[in-house]
Amino acid sequence: MTREELIEQIKIKKSFLCVGLDSDIKKIPTHLLRKEDPIFEFNKAIIASTKAYAVAYKPNIAFYESRGSEGMESLRKTLEVIPKECFTIADAKRGDIGNTANMYAKAFFDKSSSGFDFDSITVAPYMGADSVKPFLEFEKKWAIVLGLTSNPGSIDFQQKELTNSKRLFEEVASTVKTWGTDSNLMFVVGATRGVDIAAVRKQVPNHFFLVPGVGSQGGSLSEVVEFGMNKDCGLLVNSSRGIIYASADVDFAERAGQEAQKLQLQMHDHLKTNKII
Amino acid sequence: MTREELIEQIKIKKSFLCVGLDSDIKKIPTHLLRKEDPIFEFNKAIIASTKAYAVAYKPNIAFYESRGSEGMESLRKTLEVIPKECFTIADAKRGDIGNTANMYAKAFFDKSSSGFDFDSITVAPYMGADSVKPFLEFEKKWAIVLGLTSNPGSIDFQQKELTNSKRLFEEVASTVKTWGTDSNLMFVVGATRGVDIAAVRKQVPNHFFLVPGVGSQGGSLSEVVEFGMNKDCGLLVNSSRGIIYASADVDFAERAGQEAQKLQLQMHDHLKTNKII
Repeated sequence: MTREELIEQIKIKKSFLCVGLDSDIKKIPTHLLRKEDPIFEFNKAIIASTKAYAVAYKPNIAFYESRGSEGMESLRKTLEVIPKECFTIADAKRGDIGNTANMYAKAFFDKSSSGFDFDSITVAPYMGADSVKPFLEFEKKWAIVLGLTSNPGSIDFQQKELTNSKRLFEEVASTVKTWGTDSNLMFVVGATRGVDIAAVRKQVPNHFFLVPGVGSQGGSLSEVVEFGMNKDCGLLVNSSRGIIYASADVDFAERAGQEAQKLQLQMHDHLKTNKII
Repeated sequence: MTREELIEQIKIKKSFLCVGLDSDIKKIPTHLLRKEDPIFEFNKAIIASTKAYAVAYKPNIAFYESRGSEGMESLRKTLEVIPKECFTIADAKRGDIGNTANMYAKAFFDKSSSGFDFDSITVAPYMGADSVKPFLEFEKKWAIVLGLTSNPGSIDFQQKELTNSKRLFEEVASTVKTWGTDSNLMFVVGATRGVDIAAVRKQVPNHFFLVPGVGSQGGSLSEVVEFGMNKDCGLLVNSSRGIIYASADVDFAERAGQEAQKLQLQMHDHLKTNKII
């Protein structure tokens, strides 16, 4: 999907919501366990009830990989039921040297090779340029590079100050942006502190941010918008558990839809206030 | 596998060789393509011809993942033919927050969940403590954390100097070691510069290093030993392409065995010189 197409979807749906499919066999409603592929049935119902409100879906690859080839099959079928106009993110956080990164790009971008055809993949920056650039060579595909994450461990290295007085996550943003464009690179920027979101925005004014951590991880949507939104919106805000596990009962899909709509209505207001729609 | 068992194997085989199974359908001998599972047949033959010289095997997960569920099935069968006394490394470079890291640990360590039962997995440190610790909770299993990699991109962030005057890769070693022990943590340390290997060794005197980059990536075994070996050996030196692609003809396994033996003989000498055997 191109940048223009993504922005168009945000305007059509009046939403910059990404639904995280962290679908865990131990957490999905028990009545689904009787089905042949419970994870797929869960995802299909969640997607059907949230697709009016979400512009993106982000399966968390670990949750599928941990179930072996059966899990990867659930993932493949899930991708097929995500509407074509939605942006898809393989949340895989891959990072390896050139020829290996190439293989990972194939694994998530090249349907003829692996069966998967995601629009984007999350990528770890630690190994540097040759671990990110191979993902940028696919037309209409994106690398979403970890900048500042929302977990407690982000203080261990990401927040460390370098001798050039940038913190590592700022250095990552300012360096990685030179490897691609705002049409094939995004950054993961956690929602936990507004000032940090502003610090990344300063390094990369035009790039989209994928923002985890709103909802169950404690981040505030208003703060994310205040410090992260740009003239094209520039935000995909993810919610996983708050939506997909809103109910563990037979009404799980309906409740997920309601939670997604709540966020979409807030996003609608923010997009209007910021004159994007 | 425990640290003691690994050291015992190094002494028995007089080797600290790890064979990297970066098995690429486009590079394996063409006569294998007629088989039902060419990648598995290739790996099986390579393992049979090198197992006398190798203490560890390291499948590069990207090469399997890129072939979808078929590739993961080749990987599962490969693991079954690796002798039980060999240390197995899932070269996956995973890194994600707590509950997701847990899922990745299951994906590679918990046979009942995913079908895989590796001894260890390579892990990226960028997301900090909660992305590494979940891998340390499995008995006799290891996390092998990226310290200094051997690719050109290692200069982009790993080599950056922090205000505490450590470079990032030194900070990673000195911080990560506090999260576990030398019996469940190793570090990836590239073979490209002896002084850098020495710098990591200074931070973690007792831990094992997994050393890529000897052979086709230009690193020297003597230099690795000079700057990286400790009293228990403390090294697993990996060679992938130099061994597995020694020949692209029907003699590929025989030639792989010869290349592995060449390295083993040099390792024998180093172990003797350093009074480990």
